[in-house]
Amino acid sequence: MPGSLVYVGEKRTQSVKLQLMDFTETDLTEKLLDRPEDCLAFKDSGSVSWINVTGIHDVEIVKKIGELFGIHALILEDILNSGQRPKLEEAEDYLFLVIKMLYVKPRESRITSEQVSVIIGQNYVLSFQEQEMDVFDPVRDRIRKTVPRVRFSNTDYLAYALIDAVVDHYFAIVEHLGDRVEEMEERLVVRPSTEDLQSIHELKRELIFMRKAVFPLREVIGNLERTESSLVHRSTRIYLRDLYEHTIQVIDTVETLRDTVSGLLDIYLSSVSNRMNEVMKVLTIIATIFIPLSFLAGVYGMNFDTSASPLNMPELHFPYGYIMFWVIALMVGFGLLWSFKRKRWL
Amino acid sequence: MPGSLVYVGEKRTQSVKLQLMDFTETDLTEKLLDRPEDCLAFKDSGSVSWINVTGIHDVEIVKKIGELFGIHALILEDILNSGQRPKLEEAEDYLFLVIKMLYVKPRESRITSEQVSVIIGQNYVLSFQEQEMDVFDPVRDRIRKTVPRVRFSNTDYLAYALIDAVVDHYFAIVEHLGDRVEEMEERLVVRPSTEDLQSIHELKRELIFMRKAVFPLREVIGNLERTESSLVHRSTRIYLRDLYEHTIQVIDTVETLRDTVSGLLDIYLSSVSNRMNEVMKVLTIIATIFIPLSFLAGVYGMNFDTSASPLNMPELHFPYGYIMFWVIALMVGFGLLWSFKRKRWL
Amino acid sequence: MPGSLVYVGEKRTQSVKLQLMDFTETDLTEKLLDRPEDCLAFKDSGSVSWINVTGIHDVEIVKKIGELFGIHALILEDILNSGQRPKLEEAEDYLFLVIKMLYVKPRESRITSEQVSVIIGQNYVLSFQEQEMDVFDPVRDRIRKTVPRVRFSNTDYLAYALIDAVVDHYFAIVEHLGDRVEEMEERLVVRPSTEDLQSIHELKRELIFMRKAVFPLREVIGNLERTESSLVHRSTRIYLRDLYEHTIQVIDTVETLRDTVSGLLDIYLSSVSNRMNEVMKVLTIIATIFIPLSFLAGVYGMNFDTSASPLNMPELHFPYGYIMFWVIALMVGFGLLWSFKRKRWL
Amino acid sequence: MPGSLVYVGEKRTQSVKLQLMDFTETDLTEKLLDRPEDCLAFKDSGSVSWINVTGIHDVEIVKKIGELFGIHALILEDILNSGQRPKLEEAEDYLFLVIKMLYVKPRESRITSEQVSVIIGQNYVLSFQEQEMDVFDPVRDRIRKTVPRVRFSNTDYLAYALIDAVVDHYFAIVEHLGDRVEEMEERLVVRPSTEDLQSIHELKRELIFMRKAVFPLREVIGNLERTESSLVHRSTRIYLRDLYEHTIQVIDTVETLRDTVSGLLDIYLSSVSNRMNEVMKVLTIIATIFIPLSFLAGVYGMNFDTSASPLNMPELHFPYGYIMFWVIALMVGFGLLWSFKRKRWL
Amino acid sequence: MPGSLVYVGEKRTQSVKLQLMDFTETDLTEKLLDRPEDCLAFKDSGSVSWINVTGIHDVEIVKKIGELFGIHALILEDILNSGQRPKLEEAEDYLFLVIKMLYVKPRESRITSEQVSVIIGQNYVLSFQEQEMDVFDPVRDRIRKTVPRVRFSNTDYLAYALIDAVVDHYFAIVEHLGDRVEEMEERLVVRPSTEDLQSIHELKRELIFMRKAVFPLREVIGNLERTESSLVHRSTRIYLRDLYEHTIQVIDTVETLRDTVSGLLDIYLSSVSNRMNEVMKVLTIIATIFIPLSFLAGVYGMNFDTSASPLNMPELHFPYGYIMFWVIALMVGFGLLWSFKRKRWL
Repeated sequence: MPGSLVYVGEKRTQSVKLQLMDFTETDLTEKLLDRPEDCLAFKDSGSVSWINVTGIHDVEIVKKIGELFGIHALILEDILNSGQRPKLEEAEDYLFLVIKMLYVKPRESRITSEQVSVIIGQNYVLSFQEQEMDVFDPVRDRIRKTVPRVRFSNTDYLAYALIDAVVDHYFAIVEHLGDRVEEMEERLVVRPSTEDLQSIHELKRELIFMRKAVFPLREVIGNLERTESSLVHRSTRIYLRDLYEHTIQVIDTVETLRDTVSGLLDIYLSSVSNRMNEVMKVLTIIATIFIPLSFLAGVYGMNFDTSASPLNMPELHFPYGYIMFWVIALMVGFGLLWSFKRKRWL
Repeated sequence: MPGSLVYVGEKRTQSVKLQLMDFTETDLTEKLLDRPEDCLAFKDSGSVSWINVTGIHDVEIVKKIGELFGIHALILEDILNSGQRPKLEEAEDYLFLVIKMLYVKPRESRITSEQVSVIIGQNYVLSFQEQEMDVFDPVRDRIRKTVPRVRFSNTDYLAYALIDAVVDHYFAIVEHLGDRVEEMEERLVVRPSTEDLQSIHELKRELIFMRKAVFPLREVIGNLERTESSLVHRSTRIYLRDLYEHTIQVIDTVETLRDTVSGLLDIYLSSVSNRMNEVMKVLTIIATIFIPLSFLAGVYGMNFDTSASPLNMPELHFPYGYIMFWVIALMVGFGLLWSFKRKRWL
Repeated sequence: MPGSLVYVGEKRTQSVKLQLMDFTETDLTEKLLDRPEDCLAFKDSGSVSWINVTGIHDVEIVKKIGELFGIHALILEDILNSGQRPKLEEAEDYLFLVIKMLYVKPRESRITSEQVSVIIGQNYVLSFQEQEMDVFDPVRDRIRKTVPRVRFSNTDYLAYALIDAVVDHYFAIVEHLGDRVEEMEERLVVRPSTEDLQSIHELKRELIFMRKAVFPLREVIGNLERTESSLVHRSTRIYLRDLYEHTIQVIDTVETLRDTVSGLLDIYLSSVSNRMNEVMKVLTIIATIFIPLSFLAGVYGMNFDTSASPLNMPELHFPYGYIMFWVIALMVGFGLLWSFKRKRWL
Repeated sequence: MPGSLVYVGEKRTQSVKLQLMDFTETDLTEKLLDRPEDCLAFKDSGSVSWINVTGIHDVEIVKKIGELFGIHALILEDILNSGQRPKLEEAEDYLFLVIKMLYVKPRESRITSEQVSVIIGQNYVLSFQEQEMDVFDPVRDRIRKTVPRVRFSNTDYLAYALIDAVVDHYFAIVEHLGDRVEEMEERLVVRPSTEDLQSIHELKRELIFMRKAVFPLREVIGNLERTESSLVHRSTRIYLRDLYEHTIQVIDTVETLRDTVSGLLDIYLSSVSNRMNEVMKVLTIIATIFIPLSFLAGVYGMNFDTSASPLNMPELHFPYGYIMFWVIALMVGFGLLWSFKRKRWL
Repeated sequence: MPGSLVYVGEKRTQSVKLQLMDFTETDLTEKLLDRPEDCLAFKDSGSVSWINVTGIHDVEIVKKIGELFGIHALILEDILNSGQRPKLEEAEDYLFLVIKMLYVKPRESRITSEQVSVIIGQNYVLSFQEQEMDVFDPVRDRIRKTVPRVRFSNTDYLAYALIDAVVDHYFAIVEHLGDRVEEMEERLVVRPSTEDLQSIHELKRELIFMRKAVFPLREVIGNLERTESSLVHRSTRIYLRDLYEHTIQVIDTVETLRDTVSGLLDIYLSSVSNRMNEVMKVLTIIATIFIPLSFLAGVYGMNFDTSASPLNMPELHFPYGYIMFWVIALMVGFGLLWSFKRKRWL
């Protein structure tokens, strides 16, 4: 049912955390809020309030915040449904952004994505993340340290800083993938193994996954830069433009990696087939040399009655018969070897 | 002939069902209509009337409804021809929408599509489906339960709810396909079989089929959102925007699945060729070891006349001849095995 | 030389046929004209005149008609050159359309195309086709039977009916191709043959051929619908819109078929390689079993002098030597068979 | 250095030829000019002057003409550099066009391109070509023969005629390539050879080469048709439109040929692999039949001491032993043959 | 942190070089500046000042220059981060350009890229490069030699000259790559080796690398040409247009090379498989001829007791038995050879 609030995502049990940073150019209040209602005091203050909600599995809390800040039910639904594409929606008195935080889980090397939703109001910024990540810590540090906080006095710059933190992390992910591609590349040439095929397939899938998260972000940031909403100030646009370029850089690198990975498959298949060919060559050479020789040996193992006629296998009685057999056998063998050499099969 | 009404689709024999829901913000009338003419009473009432026609194979009934509501002959033709692409057409006093309902038949796992046509008038909504499906039941439930029916007092919201029900079902289909892809992926690596190739081809075809049904819907909903028709109210547009995002999400996932399935083919082919290579290796190793040994045995099976000359096969008379033969044979055999091991063929 | 009139197309010898239908809402005159000059009488009458020219290889007749109706030399050149792409050209007092009629020759199953040129004037429609086809017969029937001919009183509707007849025929062609693809699909899985490769290539080529004929038509009809020419009336536009949708439907199906045919090639190649693998397996199994056994038989065929030393082949004199040979041979044989079975090579 | 005039192209030594055609609707002067300065007399006459420069390797002559007609240094640079893409540039009082003349060298079947530069002034047309080609001869003939030269009284029509001559020649090239593709297609099915692969690669490359020359021309002619320059008259635009259609037709055919050539590679690879499979089958069948038989013969060649025990190879003393051997051998042989037949390997 | 100045690129230790060229139409001052502060004197002089900074690893110097010329922190960040894409940014009183200088390192044949940043002010041009390259030397020469320096009196023309120098160098790179592709092509047909696969992969990667550097440049130059900034004069636009065409020419050639390299992979794979097939054929032929013959020899090596029955191997006692064996063996051998010849396997 549209507008009905249901959490869609991984099951989680941690308690939800509400982190508040409320600041003006000079003052700063930081605290952990116990209840969503505590936000209210900061909503219409002159200061900029950033409320970061960690954990969206508690539908009631998100709903309460939604009510307090007058957020449309459909947007709350999007916040709770962690399968959104990155997007920008403009309501009358706030902007709503969905972006994807990507990270590599330490144990496994798989890329996972977390949905980050940001609501930019006149003097508040709400950010929702699925679980605690330290990606916003540098932003907190900068707010604490930059005094006077001239730029941060606008919520749009704060929002930019949050998105920028996420996009900056993309570069780390891209580098991680790039390293894996390069490593694979070197391994493939030296010694391709059956598992490599699956690794290539996985790399491909992760690049598709990454692309899906980053590609729509380009348009989102582009739209945010060009929006007519008064919430985005002229002075912030140059930062958004910069962010836009960064996003394109990430996309570019992802595309390049995809091209490279496609090439890896060719190398793998070709390496495998090269090894196979080597095996076949050895079989051919051994078989080709010994099959005629075996025939010759078979001939002189025949039991034709040499006493019935002098035409029956007189070679058997030649004094040098056996030696001539070996001479012929070695000549045939080395002759074939030489002809293989000449054909460059060896 | 353009405008001539002929049913194009699967043969069906069930009788056509006309379900009426007529409601205002507070009152609700539900009944099954016997004849199309019974619709007339509800056409121009102040209430919102939703007439759902199940079964379009009875041309006469569709024609009659068309006449009663003043629907253009070409549009009736489209309703009857179940091979339409999703589309939106704007007439002067109504909007006409074609969408594709997708479902997985319980017995077989194939995706089938049913055409759903929706006509949005000032105070009526006509929906036509090929056969009874329970996809609209949640909408009926919501109409029954939501009191007062503020949103439903506009026909465009009702139409939105119907399309939303169809699109929501797409997610189930996509998940079903995703599961099949994942299952296939795991199976391929462990033990690829000849039927897998055909399954991959079928998956591919179903993804193409799905894409064909969903892709044009994006534009349809986009156009519906941006239409200048007074039938679509400002308040509904945000819902249509949300629906639009959902459609893109479905398309995105379908595209990702297509990419993955393409990769599956590579895995399949490579798995098959890997198994083949293993078979070939065994042949090579067995043959390469025994062919030279057989030659040696053949040599000492020759009947050169040892009495004719002491040069003829003197080895046969050596006291350790036979033992030396075995020593040589084993040395050659193990030597080759060792060299294969060193070349990593084993 | 531009504007010089030369017939470009297959050599033909039949005589050119000029079919006239001249009608108002109530009256109808049908006759075969002997000479192009006979058209003149109908050119500026108040009635709608449709002159269908069958056979464009007689340049003189086309030239004469061109002069009588004031058609630009370049357009006459296009009519005569049967290698045009579908296109729409707007002159001051007429519209010029080129479309491609596709049909499957009864004997061969190849798709052939014929160029159909249509000129829409204020109260005349000229249509040119390369040879007689019955595709326009249903249009003639409708003109004869629909009384009063309200819609046909505009030349644009008549032209629409002609194009619609051609596009309707596309569906038959698409179905024909679809049937061939499906048939091929079933055959490939059961028993791929060498000719199938060529059939796939031919199917591909015909789909490219079809695409080339239909793809530009989409734009042609789209432009015709949106033209500012007063020759296209508002009432006809809804029909053109419908035609446009049909064209897209055809293109969609052609694209889907192309995707499917690409998949067929993969199935073919994989089927062939599967069969090859089976053959190789049999070779491997037979060879792998008998090569060691042959060696063993070879060993006991050696002529080491058992009288020279008791170490020389004592087995030959064992009372159970021969039986033990068979026991060992069968054990080796069945042991290998069993190990192949375990590796799932059988 | 930009604007510095250097000839870039093949080394040539022929002397440069300046051909002048100066004409009004009624009069015509044709002569070979000795020096560039001779052009000057015709530059501002009321008549249309066409100066065709054959050979651009003499930088001085081109420079002189540039000065006389006031051509920008960058444009002269482009004329001299034969590696330009087709393009249109609009200067204040002239238009500058680069197109590519394609031709097939008689000895080799490779496609070569020559750069043709055209400058359209108010009453002069300058055309520059790398070496003498007869492609402009038909244009000269038409100028000579068409009296009065109404259309040629505008320089834009003359320029159109020149481009048209070049584009017309493309059709010949496309046909030449089409013939080669078809020929290759037939050969591949019957008897694929190793050189075919390279021929396919060459065809591919020539199609890419051709595409590179023709593709940008579409835009060039489109821009020329839509230009706001007063040098292109309304009456000429319909001819340019026609030319535009021709260019698209060429591109279309080139694209179709590229698709077909891609298919050829599949056919080639598959043909080769089919032949390989046949070879393998023969090996398998021969080996599979004779390997067990050889084993059997080997068994009865063993030297077990029949006198040591009646269990040692009693078959050797059976009166029908040898005949039974042959019976068994033939049964095994034909049995295997029959089983191969049943598996359709033969 | 956005706007924080960190050098991102290869570690370098050379000292940073500041080269100044300050000139009017007639006068010219050239010197090496010791400290960034020395620039200040030239900033607002009436003359054009070009300051070329070689080495951007000394953040302090770049920062100082940025302060002196009032460059935005984000732009300084871009200058220092050598992983930028080519781009154009317009600030109020200057334009900022990033382009990529490509060069081939003399020892290795790999393409490397260096970032070149250009800032165009009213009467100054700042250029930043990572390390000393002689690509700007021709521009310096031209400034020195062209007197009066009419064109160079605008900074936009100077900037154009710098970009042009970079783009001109692209042609050399493209030619280098083209040579390598051609060389590879010839080698592949004659004698494909295992390393070729990797070389093809490397070529592919370098073409992707090159494309990534050149592709965005097209848009950059296009935007520079169309910019509304008063810093770009009308007279310079024709040069930028020319530059734009050059860039497209480079992109075109890169794309063509990529197509060709894709084809090379097919040739490689096919060459390898052809050689493999040849090897297999030899095996087949040798085996197919000798396997039946060995069987025959094996038969006459059997020890059936000819004294037990006259039916046991009577051939052994025929006076011409042995000769007949050879006759049959040669007939079988040559018969098979002949049949292979007829099947064109030889």
